Amino acid sequence: MFSRKMPTVKFTYFPAKALGESCRLLLAYGGQEFEDYRINPDNWPNIKPTTPFGQLPVLEIDGKKYAQSLAISRYLGRKYGLNGADIEEDFLIDQSVDFINDIRAKAATVQYESDEALKEKKHEDFSKNVYPPMLKKLDEIVKQNNGHVAAEKLTWGDFVFAGMLDYLKVMMRRPQLEEEFPSFKQLLDNVYALPQLQKYLAQAPDTEL
Amino acid sequence: MFSRKMPTVKFTYFPAKALGESCRLLLAYGGQEFEDYRINPDNWPNIKPTTPFGQLPVLEIDGKKYAQSLAISRYLGRKYGLNGADIEEDFLIDQSVDFINDIRAKAATVQYESDEALKEKKHEDFSKNVYPPMLKKLDEIVKQNNGHVAAEKLTWGDFVFAGMLDYLKVMMRRPQLEEEFPSFKQLLDNVYALPQLQKYLAQAPDTEL
Repeated sequence: MFSRKMPTVKFTYFPAKALGESCRLLLAYGGQEFEDYRINPDNWPNIKPTTPFGQLPVLEIDGKKYAQSLAISRYLGRKYGLNGADIEEDFLIDQSVDFINDIRAKAATVQYESDEALKEKKHEDFSKNVYPPMLKKLDEIVKQNNGHVAAEKLTWGDFVFAGMLDYLKVMMRRPQLEEEFPSFKQLLDNVYALPQLQKYLAQAPDTEL
Repeated sequence: MFSRKMPTVKFTYFPAKALGESCRLLLAYGGQEFEDYRINPDNWPNIKPTTPFGQLPVLEIDGKKYAQSLAISRYLGRKYGLNGADIEEDFLIDQSVDFINDIRAKAATVQYESDEALKEKKHEDFSKNVYPPMLKKLDEIVKQNNGHVAAEKLTWGDFVFAGMLDYLKVMMRRPQLEEEFPSFKQLLDNVYALPQLQKYLAQAPDTEL
């Protein structure tokens, strides 16, 4: 008989959902105990040089470091059986995740614009010309896939979108996004109602984004 | 005996390498004949509504459309055996590709800044503070992997970096990037010397980026 020691897992991110929550949710889904290390942002300059790319999140499994939010999410998704049935389905998940990430990247160029006047101008422009067609397209995709981002079933891609939605709402200044798009609400429910997540969700700290 | 018809494949992108070349190179590597459709940019407004996300590139296989450059590259890489040996190696490829994409995204915020004064200010700032640590890190990765982006062997991730390098050079205004970093030159050579690519390379039009 082999003795399989449970690995020691630590997940490091800012005190936010944003780009880290999909990984936390996937670890919870996989039944993996982990240290949910939410750094004090004041401490970031000290932690930054210890990360593989000067960025968070970082996942550590028995001391081995994994970086890049989407790469980690795909990895955990495959580990816990939340990938597609074949390369065609895996492609569809990746395609939707990359599109969701495009939306996030657009909104981030507004959110992290340091010139206040320019920021407001960009926000107005994007709210009128950029977000509406992107959100409409994403709504179509989630509707076509019965409340999922791809393959008409639960995949790690759903965890990416569910984990990121509060961040999108803040950056886009659209706090009612899932009321505007009931398909998004359906997707959230499909993820957040999973029994495997309840213990994590009950103790996770509240964060705005 | 089954009769397997070669699929009809069309690849649509702008007349540039940029985000499309990795896909073209991967199709060539896989021995897949394809229509290399390089659109006239004046025609983009007409083509845009026919694409899945209002973006290029788009790959069509027997009429089925595939979008998102990195998702397509990963898909073709797996199809042609250029993925990792297991989920650990696949993760390492994804992690490096996402980091390369981070570098591209940073440079793109400069390249596509419409305010000329701001663009110059950003370029100066990034050239001093952002690009050097990122390029240094990428150089370390490629060195550690013997002229590859991950797993110490040829993977689809190498095609992403090789296909994107001219684009990075233009956006960063560093035309000597592979002389600055011999590891990048080694990676380029590892890709562009592949016998499977020679027919495509001999007839591909010259493009600046």
